[in-house]
Amino acid sequence: MAPTLLPGLQDIAQLEPGDIAARATSYWDASPLQAAAVYLPRSTEEVSRILKACHAADQTIVVQGGRTGCAAGADSTGTDVAISLERMNRIERIDADAMTAEVEAGVILETLQNAAAERDLFLPLDLGARGSCTIGGNIATNAGGVNVIRYGMVRNLVLGLEAVLPDGRIVSSMQPMLKNNSGYDLKQLFIGTEGTIGIVTRAILRLEPAVAGHATALAALSSFEAVAALLRLSKARLGADLTSFELMWGAYYAAVSDGLGVRPPTPVGYDYYALIETECRDQEAGRDALVALFEEAIATGRIDDGVLAQSEKERREMWRIRDDFEPILRKKPVYLFDVSMGVAAMEGYVATARDLLSTAFPESEFHVFGHIGDGNLHLFVYPGQGPAALGAGTRREVERCVYEPLQSVNGSISAEHGIGREKKPWLGVTRSDTEIAVMKTLKRAFDPKNLLNPGVIFDL
Amino acid sequence: MAPTLLPGLQDIAQLEPGDIAARATSYWDASPLQAAAVYLPRSTEEVSRILKACHAADQTIVVQGGRTGCAAGADSTGTDVAISLERMNRIERIDADAMTAEVEAGVILETLQNAAAERDLFLPLDLGARGSCTIGGNIATNAGGVNVIRYGMVRNLVLGLEAVLPDGRIVSSMQPMLKNNSGYDLKQLFIGTEGTIGIVTRAILRLEPAVAGHATALAALSSFEAVAALLRLSKARLGADLTSFELMWGAYYAAVSDGLGVRPPTPVGYDYYALIETECRDQEAGRDALVALFEEAIATGRIDDGVLAQSEKERREMWRIRDDFEPILRKKPVYLFDVSMGVAAMEGYVATARDLLSTAFPESEFHVFGHIGDGNLHLFVYPGQGPAALGAGTRREVERCVYEPLQSVNGSISAEHGIGREKKPWLGVTRSDTEIAVMKTLKRAFDPKNLLNPGVIFDL
Repeated sequence: MAPTLLPGLQDIAQLEPGDIAARATSYWDASPLQAAAVYLPRSTEEVSRILKACHAADQTIVVQGGRTGCAAGADSTGTDVAISLERMNRIERIDADAMTAEVEAGVILETLQNAAAERDLFLPLDLGARGSCTIGGNIATNAGGVNVIRYGMVRNLVLGLEAVLPDGRIVSSMQPMLKNNSGYDLKQLFIGTEGTIGIVTRAILRLEPAVAGHATALAALSSFEAVAALLRLSKARLGADLTSFELMWGAYYAAVSDGLGVRPPTPVGYDYYALIETECRDQEAGRDALVALFEEAIATGRIDDGVLAQSEKERREMWRIRDDFEPILRKKPVYLFDVSMGVAAMEGYVATARDLLSTAFPESEFHVFGHIGDGNLHLFVYPGQGPAALGAGTRREVERCVYEPLQSVNGSISAEHGIGREKKPWLGVTRSDTEIAVMKTLKRAFDPKNLLNPGVIFDL
Repeated sequence: MAPTLLPGLQDIAQLEPGDIAARATSYWDASPLQAAAVYLPRSTEEVSRILKACHAADQTIVVQGGRTGCAAGADSTGTDVAISLERMNRIERIDADAMTAEVEAGVILETLQNAAAERDLFLPLDLGARGSCTIGGNIATNAGGVNVIRYGMVRNLVLGLEAVLPDGRIVSSMQPMLKNNSGYDLKQLFIGTEGTIGIVTRAILRLEPAVAGHATALAALSSFEAVAALLRLSKARLGADLTSFELMWGAYYAAVSDGLGVRPPTPVGYDYYALIETECRDQEAGRDALVALFEEAIATGRIDDGVLAQSEKERREMWRIRDDFEPILRKKPVYLFDVSMGVAAMEGYVATARDLLSTAFPESEFHVFGHIGDGNLHLFVYPGQGPAALGAGTRREVERCVYEPLQSVNGSISAEHGIGREKKPWLGVTRSDTEIAVMKTLKRAFDPKNLLNPGVIFDL
């Protein structure tokens, strides 16, 4: 029997204690899930009842979606009640005329992508965890992913939203319009606030017409100046058709293609590799536009080598080098970072971080790729030895090398992964004391008892 | 000499009392501006000092930009201190590489549009008041306009923001990245909250590459079903190139073209007229795509007649019928409304509102057009007689006819104009009691004394 911590909730499904311990904490942490109870509500009303009971009992709550977040924002402890939205997984309606999807928060991203595709529509959100992450988690973390340059973050896709406040009140703003300036836009309280202000239970998302095809190409470049010039040229020539501009540093490209045992589409040895993709309503015209871009860029000395994907298979091979960084994760430990800054600051920032790391960790390895079209870099740092040899302060010291140089370039310690519990000590690098104080004012206004996802983003 | 209401602010510029009275209340209200004082700060620091002094003295404040808002949100009374940001009108930086503009809040929209164009860039915000409205006002009201279908509302264009809280604290989040999930996105507190949480003083906006050209066409249609089908087809065939899909009801089209004395591009007498515009990097290809769309739509019976603008002159003539509704305003009074709903609900909603109006006001005239690609309709109601004859309750009764039917279609009483002071009595049509209570919680958390734009959106 599951524990009965809270009165009046006996009819709401819970995990059995044995099933709690059989779950991993998260995708990143295989240790058994800790929680005083794990509720599995089937409706917004059940979520509301759970929160009312927790509120009355001063019980802390942690919200769980796909548990694939990168900042430990959904990690619960043995004294928390966890609420998993996994049974709120209905796609309530796809309106093909209005091009909207009305869903419960526990719907898996990929399930909704597929359901939209079946109606000849396209959900403009995609990220690596598509098979496990949920729409509610995507909204709570304002997820980014590979289409941001064209469609924006999740914030830009949410038309309507329903959420439950820490005191159990249901805030329902489930309207399907792109334009609605009737008072404060309350959706913004719940998008990207990592479940600290309320629990997202339902949403209406924008869909787009299905994309007929893609044109994809890889360019090799010898300087960051050439990268920045190619990005500008791509935006100017391809406009809204440009969906991805992904940059791999030379060492990343070499390490991944070597580690995967694939023949790299363009030779290793250049400083940078840009993966450029467009969506096109006419496949041939799309390819022609990309070829014309590359011809112009080669003629003006911006790129040294380039190749166009001639088939879906070749396209997937290009993306695999960008996506499948498993070879880099083979050495342990490897720390993953998600930072952002203006494109003009990137070259200097990466050089500074590399210098700091090689001084602090002479045997470190450092790999970089990013969605640079939207200012976002992902960094991988292997400090050079096993964690035991380096001691408990290793991670903190690596973080210092990566985060501190962001301050002088007005950068962000989290582009798309959020702050969660993991990045909390570094929030002050990106946010002023006043900004953090304002965040706390907002949190206290809606959760004065600090019961909902306590310790996420900041400690009160 | 201007009054010295507040200590310590003698060095901050004010309007002379005579100059206050020489100003109109707003574009819509020619009566003399009322205010205990009108401060003209030149910097965020001066705004902060004014707010600190007002906070200490329990003095109410009204923020003023271009004073062209449509909901009386900037109307001050004789006991308010007004703060006009007209002298904070510097374009601090246009970064052509990053495609961003860093500006003070008092910059006139058109000034920034032109400055971007000079750098071969494009500010994707445009609306009728471009020559007088300010960026700060655009942000505070989350302005919409004619490009929303392609670029979103202002919320989607703001990368960085600086604002001053009611207690004078400066919240500066002036980062230029598209992606920044480092804690709560505090910009959202100030975008679309109509100056009730803080005063926007500076911003960083996204720019886009300059648009090479436009293709524009007008279609005549015989049913709303055909309109909805054409909208879907346009989105599918034109994708991100579709920037405008403006619908005029037949009576509007006839009244405006007749009143302006222009020859209508397609004959009057149809039920609906859709003005469709795309932006194109290649003018000829853009026209070809629009012609192909019209051929397909005619072949499948979706449109009855259509014409493509063959020159910039013809394009302007088409837009003039959509933009220049002066003939409809000639009769007095005419009330303007700005509502939104799903496209599927529009036909029924307009019929219901028309029935209610003709029952309540047998001699009324009712005209409709809208940015229907984003769910937004603008309605003009002439109740049929002078206001004196109809009595003071006329406006309220017209509002009832227009707003009440929105409830059953899950619509909004304000798509893009905001609530201001004027629409406050009707907020409950669109928002639940819980939603309004949450808005008030937010307001109280930052402005417990209710000093900043009091009475805008709701009364505390």
